[in-house]
Amino acid sequence: MRRVAFQGIHGANSEIALLRMPGLRCRTLPCETFEEVFTAVETGKASHGIIPIENSLAGSIHQNYDLLLSHALPIVGETRLRIEHALVAPRGTTMRRIRSVRSHPQALAQCSDFFRAHRALRPVPYFDTAGAAASVAGEKQGDTAAIASTYAARLYRLAILRRNIENAENNVTRFLVLARTPWRARKGVRTKTSIVFSPLRNEVGILFRILGVFALRGIDLVKIESRPNPRTTFSYLFYCDLAGDPSDVRVARAIEHLREMVSLFRILGVYPRSV
Amino acid sequence: MRRVAFQGIHGANSEIALLRMPGLRCRTLPCETFEEVFTAVETGKASHGIIPIENSLAGSIHQNYDLLLSHALPIVGETRLRIEHALVAPRGTTMRRIRSVRSHPQALAQCSDFFRAHRALRPVPYFDTAGAAASVAGEKQGDTAAIASTYAARLYRLAILRRNIENAENNVTRFLVLARTPWRARKGVRTKTSIVFSPLRNEVGILFRILGVFALRGIDLVKIESRPNPRTTFSYLFYCDLAGDPSDVRVARAIEHLREMVSLFRILGVYPRSV
Repeated sequence: MRRVAFQGIHGANSEIALLRMPGLRCRTLPCETFEEVFTAVETGKASHGIIPIENSLAGSIHQNYDLLLSHALPIVGETRLRIEHALVAPRGTTMRRIRSVRSHPQALAQCSDFFRAHRALRPVPYFDTAGAAASVAGEKQGDTAAIASTYAARLYRLAILRRNIENAENNVTRFLVLARTPWRARKGVRTKTSIVFSPLRNEVGILFRILGVFALRGIDLVKIESRPNPRTTFSYLFYCDLAGDPSDVRVARAIEHLREMVSLFRILGVYPRSV
Repeated sequence: MRRVAFQGIHGANSEIALLRMPGLRCRTLPCETFEEVFTAVETGKASHGIIPIENSLAGSIHQNYDLLLSHALPIVGETRLRIEHALVAPRGTTMRRIRSVRSHPQALAQCSDFFRAHRALRPVPYFDTAGAAASVAGEKQGDTAAIASTYAARLYRLAILRRNIENAENNVTRFLVLARTPWRARKGVRTKTSIVFSPLRNEVGILFRILGVFALRGIDLVKIESRPNPRTTFSYLFYCDLAGDPSDVRVARAIEHLREMVSLFRILGVYPRSV
């Protein structure tokens, strides 16, 4: 069976996203850092890895794009997860007895309306939401809760006191699945290709000319993002997701054409388009 | 004198970025949330506000782009700050006696090499780096340190035990300065214009045609980023920074031309280009 590495402890959002992917049966391997997720796949400790790549509130995670560039693992899939926060506590804990609520500072901030409505509850920072759930499971005082997913609550045998206590409705994270070998395109499956490149010269209109290689061939760009290249000053990295893949001759030729205009170029992966 | 609102407590990175802006003399107003920074400027409690907008490791902060869209405060300036982490503790604390180190989980993670080299130190999560510095200042045991800026250390009268304990070299945050009234362009000052738009239709090549309005007029794009529009499904928001401003007839005409192709359009601000 597949074994998929993810960052965090059991119950982390990466693991939930993974287990909800349709038709996927796998075991999961918790890792301390994203770097370790890559290493686990490279060394064969895991067959696949899953990493978050962008969030609807917090944006693209450049750090993970950097890891995709410094390692050679192809993207073979993608998935999305709506992030939901629940108030969870050991069974028997009543809402009235709770004094402190543990979670990641970002999760605490995303539930600020809840805290404003419940002044008696003191937010306490923790490393991550799943870890907060695991940690309150071991507490006996009965006055500590955590903000975590309902999945983490079930995993650590906690009661769910309140669901969806988050302020924002639209907290969605997109994840990428990595493997050692590329995904093999199948007929009839809609595909996406993720590429990264750095224009050869930083001149006016260069991006327009680069997009032309796709637009003039009728290829759809699903995502584009520029970012100052962290390795060299005064150059930019571009992340692009294209509809389709190089088995389509138009895409293959567009990529050949693109290579004439860029100093750095990498196909990060070709995979079924699911989001 | 100007009074500038920022999110966090005194010693936060936003405040440091602000105080290092050349030629700027101001007082600062700490706010609990980014939303409050906007409100402080709108209601006149502050003349200006400063918000982080992108980080070299963590990416663009979509949440703050959303606040720029839901409020009407123009961007009037920008600045960058290299984020540096120091190990700080009450004076008299020795390295050998420290047992726990308090900071934001992200700062703790950014110093993971330091913790690997100092196994006796236990990382403890906190809301933010400046808050961690302020909190250890009040402790008497002498076994607790914080990871924070050297600026926060001076502010809370802490000793700096180690400088630059961060793993990554390239942790830079870009900040925007907001005001109630737009910045007035002056001759000889290089400018930048930040815009946001959503294409009228989601059709192949639309972005190419949109970039054409700038490229074919010789206008340089400094930044471009696409993002699924959080308010409507199947549409995209684009953030662009252009070199120049609408007092240049080419820029003014390009913007008129752009409006023909977009459903949503806003100039977020015109300001001196400093990064």
